[in-house]
Amino acid sequence: MITFEDIGIACWFILPAYAANLFPVVANGKRPIDLGKNWIDNRRLFGDGKTIEGSLLGILAAVVVGLLQGDVFIGLILGSGAIIGDIFGSFIKRRLGMPQGSPLPIMDQMDFIIGALLFSALFVKLEIITIIIILILTPIFHVISNNFAYEFGFKDVRW
Amino acid sequence: MITFEDIGIACWFILPAYAANLFPVVANGKRPIDLGKNWIDNRRLFGDGKTIEGSLLGILAAVVVGLLQGDVFIGLILGSGAIIGDIFGSFIKRRLGMPQGSPLPIMDQMDFIIGALLFSALFVKLEIITIIIILILTPIFHVISNNFAYEFGFKDVRW
Repeated sequence: MITFEDIGIACWFILPAYAANLFPVVANGKRPIDLGKNWIDNRRLFGDGKTIEGSLLGILAAVVVGLLQGDVFIGLILGSGAIIGDIFGSFIKRRLGMPQGSPLPIMDQMDFIIGALLFSALFVKLEIITIIIILILTPIFHVISNNFAYEFGFKDVRW
Repeated sequence: MITFEDIGIACWFILPAYAANLFPVVANGKRPIDLGKNWIDNRRLFGDGKTIEGSLLGILAAVVVGLLQGDVFIGLILGSGAIIGDIFGSFIKRRLGMPQGSPLPIMDQMDFIIGALLFSALFVKLEIITIIIILILTPIFHVISNNFAYEFGFKDVRW
């Protein structure tokens, strides 16, 4: 059985990854990580949406959350993993020929979480129950927050 | 470090889930699992693509693979989890307003694997390294097999 304590532990653990996912938006970065270069398919490697400023701000936000939680290393690992996962998501979208900013449901919401979990699993011992809870709750959180944004007029659609 | 043995164990373990994912296509089922019913958004619950025949054939295929591997229970659990994950993927696509058969990259390839891993983790002890290998190799397998299909003229695009 999943207990409330399990859910609390999972949410507390993954918090730095969420910080890393949120903060790049406000960085308003100008320097693309791929330096404007194309891949072998003559499409951009990651695109203009993934910037050096945004990535550094995301990792910094995760480190700050980790510092507040009492473990800077976990903050750094989760933040770096989240950013790598997000950049990998953009890599996939460019390979599919999708322009910058075009939505790819589910992957857009899960890439940073999968990245944070895979990367952190290389350094720390994760409980299976923690992974299960994080994978189930992330899309649910997304749907709830989008519904709020819709109800309060910030978005035109519920999704 | 990930060893070749780790990769072998992971591929062997997940094989029933792949069987469950492949076989529903050939079932040519006619009875939709959702019995044609709509959800609260007046869209189909899962759609005509998810049939009772296909789901049962998928689980049966996984059980047969499990039997050949020497563990029918694992076959049943992985097969059921894969089918549940795949059906949940269709549920998400219907909620997004996507018609039956429309592609949703990444989720289309990962839904059955995530379902199989989450469901089996409730019953058996999984190693983190096994989960990591399966999550990384599944999209790679997909890209390689699509490239083969393209080279041999079965598909018009590499993706």
